[in-house]
Amino acid sequence: MPGGYHVAPLEALIDKLESLPSIGHKSAQRLAYYILNMSPQEAQSLADCILNAHNKIHYCSQCCNLTDGELCPVCRDEGRDSGLLCVVEEPKDVFALERGGDFPGRYHVLHGAISPLSGVGPDQLKIKELLARITPEVQEVIMATNPTVEGEATAMYIARLLKPLGVRVTRLAYGVPVGGDIEYADNVTLQRALAGRQEL
Amino acid sequence: MPGGYHVAPLEALIDKLESLPSIGHKSAQRLAYYILNMSPQEAQSLADCILNAHNKIHYCSQCCNLTDGELCPVCRDEGRDSGLLCVVEEPKDVFALERGGDFPGRYHVLHGAISPLSGVGPDQLKIKELLARITPEVQEVIMATNPTVEGEATAMYIARLLKPLGVRVTRLAYGVPVGGDIEYADNVTLQRALAGRQEL
Repeated sequence: MPGGYHVAPLEALIDKLESLPSIGHKSAQRLAYYILNMSPQEAQSLADCILNAHNKIHYCSQCCNLTDGELCPVCRDEGRDSGLLCVVEEPKDVFALERGGDFPGRYHVLHGAISPLSGVGPDQLKIKELLARITPEVQEVIMATNPTVEGEATAMYIARLLKPLGVRVTRLAYGVPVGGDIEYADNVTLQRALAGRQEL
Repeated sequence: MPGGYHVAPLEALIDKLESLPSIGHKSAQRLAYYILNMSPQEAQSLADCILNAHNKIHYCSQCCNLTDGELCPVCRDEGRDSGLLCVVEEPKDVFALERGGDFPGRYHVLHGAISPLSGVGPDQLKIKELLARITPEVQEVIMATNPTVEGEATAMYIARLLKPLGVRVTRLAYGVPVGGDIEYADNVTLQRALAGRQEL
């Protein structure tokens, strides 16, 4: 800082916070001052939460979702239909789908999507782990990757691997979002919504 | 979370991040996933930075700015003019003024402004500490509190306390910001800029 004003631990904290996604220098500064004004207990508990989450959370040995146990809550749940797998890109997609609360099957988390531009190939994703789960019990695999170029490519790639195993592979429906406005829907979405129209 | 998906350490971290200012639930989630994907060393270093800053930083015994030593870098600097004090609301104001780099005097940080609506009275601010610094050596005190109702009230209040001690009290100039556009300046600022016009 020009003018010679240096407080090393404060600057280290600001730098560290600034390295987090979507936090700029001003926000990092504001957060750092907020943290300095916390009680010692609160600061300790923030630090503990970070280390705790980091140390205790790992991938579920079955579906690769995040969990602090051997299996994640969905894989532990014996009431779930093991014949129906829903494949998603990220753990947060599982949270989003579980929010709805009426999906009866199990999940598989790929931890990304195929993206040659970012150097992510099939080997970096949890595809081997998915193939290992395709037993005769599995009736259907729903590809719920994002409706983006990468998500689409990933869904196609995995579908090609699964089809020869004799399992039914489906894709989430495209269409206008519920509560949305047709006027503001983009052309591709409208085309897909028309193509996917259903009997009333 | 509905659907029974609970990963306690992850939820604890998201809750904790969400309690920080200007971080909503979505951002907290994104930050938490980012932290989970850090290397163990990086997570440890983030936690350490938080605790370090919290444990090592305190108020400068002279100007009440943040520092990790007994005195802050400005108060330690013997080249500074002790006859000129600049009073600001927050430590970040000192950083802003030091960025310019041509203020030759010293600072005093109030840690807030008088704000009856938020329950902040003069006693919660470092005003006693300021009065204790007014020795015969001090020629001028510049009130650099924010140009807001609270900052203004604080400046007036402190000016009334200092005048009887025979010290000159000044206020930052009001006017149109450099690089700004007169068209977009608000009325009060324009009035103040007119009233404070200077000979060319």
